Amino acid sequence: MKTIIVAALVGATAILSTPAMAQFQKPEDAIKYRKASFTVMAAHFGRIGAMVNNRAPFDAKVAADNAAIVETMSKLPWAAFGAGTDKGDTRALPAIWTEQAKFKEGADKMQAEVAKLSAAAKTGNLDAIKTAFGAAGQTCKACHDDFRKE
Amino acid sequence: MKTIIVAALVGATAILSTPAMAQFQKPEDAIKYRKASFTVMAAHFGRIGAMVNNRAPFDAKVAADNAAIVETMSKLPWAAFGAGTDKGDTRALPAIWTEQAKFKEGADKMQAEVAKLSAAAKTGNLDAIKTAFGAAGQTCKACHDDFRKE
Repeated sequence: MKTIIVAALVGATAILSTPAMAQFQKPEDAIKYRKASFTVMAAHFGRIGAMVNNRAPFDAKVAADNAAIVETMSKLPWAAFGAGTDKGDTRALPAIWTEQAKFKEGADKMQAEVAKLSAAAKTGNLDAIKTAFGAAGQTCKACHDDFRKE
Repeated sequence: MKTIIVAALVGATAILSTPAMAQFQKPEDAIKYRKASFTVMAAHFGRIGAMVNNRAPFDAKVAADNAAIVETMSKLPWAAFGAGTDKGDTRALPAIWTEQAKFKEGADKMQAEVAKLSAAAKTGNLDAIKTAFGAAGQTCKACHDDFRKE
């Protein structure tokens, strides 16, 4: 009886501690989802970049709206890097799974810098946006260098 | 000189009046973006569906968080159905461009029902979420039936 209860608790703990896995039916669903979330994030990040780099006229509302979407998207892909999603239609490098702490650190840093970008965009100050955009962009690059195939 | 000024103004007007087009460098970028936004939206809509259909335990916060993401995503794809994006790696039917008013009506209806779903999810009332989820799902299906290849 005790064994059954322990087994049930272990099972429940396993489910609670791996919510990411429960969210996708198949590894390819997770891969498609995380790529999609990066695609949407990159598109909106790029629109801020166009303003930062004078390729588009600066519009504070447009910058803030895009930064808010980037911030929402920045939280999404990580749950989709679960076990078994290293193979398939993906440029993800094995280091994501062999150096999980470093990968998580990079992901956390990106989310923190993107949150700062979103806060800067709400102020409407282009100089602040430029600074925060550059810092956020560095976090994209750092992870791509270490964890993504060319 | 006059011609140059007029040409510059016409150019500026064209850019201002087609913000959707200006957002994507190439038609394939727009197609990739809109598919990605639908992929992310569907994943989070599906997580609410799992709770609505008793395939996952109901958690009011999870429902509200997912509905908020669905609401954000519901606003994104439409700017990416501009001219020239009817060909390529897409299941979009020509009717999107030949029946633009009907397509817009469907897109607006979906966004309205998704906003209701998000509001329902914030209340934490599962019955209200079920009703709103069903209505939102109908708007997905209506557009897929009319505007998407099987």
